[in-house]
Amino acid sequence: MPWLGASQETDDSPASDYDGGVSDRLHRQLAFILEADKLKAIERRTPLVDNSRQENSAEHSWHLALAAVTLIEYAPKGTDLLHALQLVTVHDLVEVDAGDTFAYDAAQHESKEARELAAAERIFGLLPPDVGARLRGWWSEFEAMQTPSARFANALDRLQPLLLNMHSGGGSWRSHRIARSQVVHRMSPIQLWMPAVWPFVLDTIDRACAAGLIVEE
Amino acid sequence: MPWLGASQETDDSPASDYDGGVSDRLHRQLAFILEADKLKAIERRTPLVDNSRQENSAEHSWHLALAAVTLIEYAPKGTDLLHALQLVTVHDLVEVDAGDTFAYDAAQHESKEARELAAAERIFGLLPPDVGARLRGWWSEFEAMQTPSARFANALDRLQPLLLNMHSGGGSWRSHRIARSQVVHRMSPIQLWMPAVWPFVLDTIDRACAAGLIVEE
Repeated sequence: MPWLGASQETDDSPASDYDGGVSDRLHRQLAFILEADKLKAIERRTPLVDNSRQENSAEHSWHLALAAVTLIEYAPKGTDLLHALQLVTVHDLVEVDAGDTFAYDAAQHESKEARELAAAERIFGLLPPDVGARLRGWWSEFEAMQTPSARFANALDRLQPLLLNMHSGGGSWRSHRIARSQVVHRMSPIQLWMPAVWPFVLDTIDRACAAGLIVEE
Repeated sequence: MPWLGASQETDDSPASDYDGGVSDRLHRQLAFILEADKLKAIERRTPLVDNSRQENSAEHSWHLALAAVTLIEYAPKGTDLLHALQLVTVHDLVEVDAGDTFAYDAAQHESKEARELAAAERIFGLLPPDVGARLRGWWSEFEAMQTPSARFANALDRLQPLLLNMHSGGGSWRSHRIARSQVVHRMSPIQLWMPAVWPFVLDTIDRACAAGLIVEE
């Protein structure tokens, strides 16, 4: 009996069993992981501490995970560290299609939601539906900032660029002539959700203003 | 009363209360996060999928976290996803001092342990002792490969470069003329701890050999 004939006899086997025993489900999961590699090419406005280049969104996401495990003691009551790590891991994935939206660019922010929704549809749609829905839910939850874990993750997403801008000599504050009130507003999730860290943030902003890195009004 | 005099009156306040209300503890945590920024400059041998440049260890660590949340269903029994994410987040931090050790370089591997122990001592030592001990414990646990979560994390740390090498046209296999038996040996944690993924790995190795990306013996 030819091989193709034998293959026909397995018609009632699960649809996922093809290609050398590798399931369609696993193939979709691996295709998603490969597609996500593109996040390493998405450039942010924040430089590395040594000012050698701009940070990319993949390494930024890792840096937030490291900040989460290091600073969990300052998180809002009810924060679940596993959940916070899941949120930061997927929070920027839509940028593979939508690009990074600069925090201080109001015009770009107007189109951000529509661009990112289309991106989420495509990128999480690469996955098997159950996994895609789970990861997409984490992305939505991060954006909505309604749960303790999402608030912690968002506060870290403000704190990390502050650290990088301050220690690289001004970073995106300086290159875009950002004003004190803009930075204070941008950092407000830290005041709300990691209040123990707020004195440090204000102190950093004061020092950055004194050094001319942030525009004093 | 001069400001310095007022400051002297707070001598019996906690040692952590100085510098504008920012505690020494928080300062150490933030200094550690800043120091970890250097992981973004540690170049691995594996290229990005688009072959534009080598991957760095920070974005690699993020990619493992994404792979962990995507592939958790294939993890060994007893794996704790939170713990696996903690392990992958810190698993390469010692490379800030010790550099990346190429998986297929036996000579480099002989000195790896001593170099990385010294690095762990310094880098985790930047943290408050309780946090430093926790994170250092995760690094040791990843290296020891004895727990289900560490085995899952290590299997992912083998699978992700396989994906990148295959889809970038050979990557470090090709540039270092790696042989089939070396790759099979390197991938063996996947066979042991994510057996459902092993047929895919063998199929990939076969294709890479057929395409001349891995040296067939």
